Amino acid sequence: MSIGIAAVGLQHGHVHNMVKALRDAGATLLWVYEPESELVPPFVEAYPEVKIARTLDEVLDDPAVHLVIGTTNPADRADLGIIVMQHGKDYACDKPGLISFDQLEAVRRVQAETGRFYAVHFGERYDSPATVKAAELARAGAIGDVVQTIGTGPHRFLGHIRRPAWAFDKQNFGGVINDLASHQIDQFLYFTQSQNVEVVQSQVGNFKHTQFPNFEDFGDLTLRSEKATGYIRVDWLTPPGLATWGDGRLFVLGTDGYIELRKYIDITGRPGKDHLFIVDGESARYIDCADVPLPYGGLLIQDVINRTQSAFDQSRCFLTCELALTAQSNAVQITPKT
Amino acid sequence: MSIGIAAVGLQHGHVHNMVKALRDAGATLLWVYEPESELVPPFVEAYPEVKIARTLDEVLDDPAVHLVIGTTNPADRADLGIIVMQHGKDYACDKPGLISFDQLEAVRRVQAETGRFYAVHFGERYDSPATVKAAELARAGAIGDVVQTIGTGPHRFLGHIRRPAWAFDKQNFGGVINDLASHQIDQFLYFTQSQNVEVVQSQVGNFKHTQFPNFEDFGDLTLRSEKATGYIRVDWLTPPGLATWGDGRLFVLGTDGYIELRKYIDITGRPGKDHLFIVDGESARYIDCADVPLPYGGLLIQDVINRTQSAFDQSRCFLTCELALTAQSNAVQITPKT
Repeated sequence: MSIGIAAVGLQHGHVHNMVKALRDAGATLLWVYEPESELVPPFVEAYPEVKIARTLDEVLDDPAVHLVIGTTNPADRADLGIIVMQHGKDYACDKPGLISFDQLEAVRRVQAETGRFYAVHFGERYDSPATVKAAELARAGAIGDVVQTIGTGPHRFLGHIRRPAWAFDKQNFGGVINDLASHQIDQFLYFTQSQNVEVVQSQVGNFKHTQFPNFEDFGDLTLRSEKATGYIRVDWLTPPGLATWGDGRLFVLGTDGYIELRKYIDITGRPGKDHLFIVDGESARYIDCADVPLPYGGLLIQDVINRTQSAFDQSRCFLTCELALTAQSNAVQITPKT
Repeated sequence: MSIGIAAVGLQHGHVHNMVKALRDAGATLLWVYEPESELVPPFVEAYPEVKIARTLDEVLDDPAVHLVIGTTNPADRADLGIIVMQHGKDYACDKPGLISFDQLEAVRRVQAETGRFYAVHFGERYDSPATVKAAELARAGAIGDVVQTIGTGPHRFLGHIRRPAWAFDKQNFGGVINDLASHQIDQFLYFTQSQNVEVVQSQVGNFKHTQFPNFEDFGDLTLRSEKATGYIRVDWLTPPGLATWGDGRLFVLGTDGYIELRKYIDITGRPGKDHLFIVDGESARYIDCADVPLPYGGLLIQDVINRTQSAFDQSRCFLTCELALTAQSNAVQITPKT
């Protein structure tokens, strides 16, 4: 048994990651809906089985659709998710899942009322074989108790490629921490299994892209829980000389060892992606994770069918959003005075 | 023209780094003084020209001694430095340079009164060819404006080797941040050339070595200046499987690129130490820094002779100590409750 899914919102290429995760695991892609019409034909070309919906209602009224996924503009995701859940369907969107505390409160309320899922696609874990492998190792105790994570999410600035205008005004995506660092917050929570988490400090700045006064190209924050701490840095400062969009890293420090991930590139080192390094009581070892399977899509399908929470945890997902919003709204502005 | 030096205090092997830096640059090692007598013969064996002083006064009264160096117990360094400076000689000690605000105040006062140097040997920069090279690149603008540093100083726990008892009681070294993180604070100040710096947050904990209740095996902190931020993590959690004492890293983020140092090991990668990776507008490149010369010793000799500050900056040195003390004394205790 599988499920029917619909893609609503094609504003970011991440929609393809979401489709792929579910489609590869057996979900049937039934509909696509995107008001910006020029985005639709390339999508249909990629997935010839999909039907083009003329209205959102066409998707919502189809009982064969169990799960709506997609990448609307970030500001619109909460409203869409609420409508989807109120129509008895589950919703999975790209990160950031929402951009304000008001949205979070509304989404939490409707999620509780309807019992449907509001799942944010944290692709730097779900779509990252190295991260999946690292989590498997860490949770199996390979490095003892996890006491700290350092996660960095550097990105190449998007001025040179097609990108919706919202990318340059933080009002539309909630700021650099809310937009990017939610990945690393998710990873901190997942690797440490923390329950009670506070944002110790957060900072945002615009160091280079001052032609966009409402942009932020740097953010960092520190988290602390009952058993671990986390440091997170995100930025849009990746230089053109890097062969990919960003040199994302994750360092997981345990009481008996540590793991380093070079997720997307091993600069001047091994080719390809998904490089895992582990040092423990015995040795330092390299693990090529390129072929590690990604369980997210298949688990989410089962969750939709069985009302379980194995692919993701709804309360942890909301906590991630809440911590991202808190870190963003409390962030000290560190753009240097000129 | 060169200078005469004396080694007072052999409580840590770092004294050899200090001797080497100065002796290789032409300083004459005149005296050694260490009350713990069994430490003296191996030192004399390493430097056969040295004379053994029976008292500290023998060193202080010798007009041929221009600079006293060494590694007494950390708690004793300030008092010794004050006596040395009051005898008209310069003083250079291992980090931490001191362990309390009272000591810092006294040392600052006597340094100003006497005009002598109180130099703390930040070996993770002075003795590190990769760090010297990175600073040269960063200061020449190779990565644009430096806006952030991440410095980690993981260490293998010392339970298995000879080490003075003070290592297990933070009262004797001022805590893990004061003891270890002063290196990374120094590097933040040196790479960013920051002037006005505050400690945004700091944390210390004892996650693994609970048999030593006055020990701390983890510390981190965040710094912020008028133009940059810095994150620092230090720990005593390096597992036995690592082939060296610690996988120290430095990440320097600029507006036009970034530098990563793998100072002491490139896990499962290139052999040896001092690995520098730079990514800029053109490409990603590896630089083997093993043969980069270390200027510190020669510059310090010239500073002692000419009363210049080229090897180090006295006010930055004191600021490093002050920030380390501040971060340590304000640190939130994060040892998990058992």
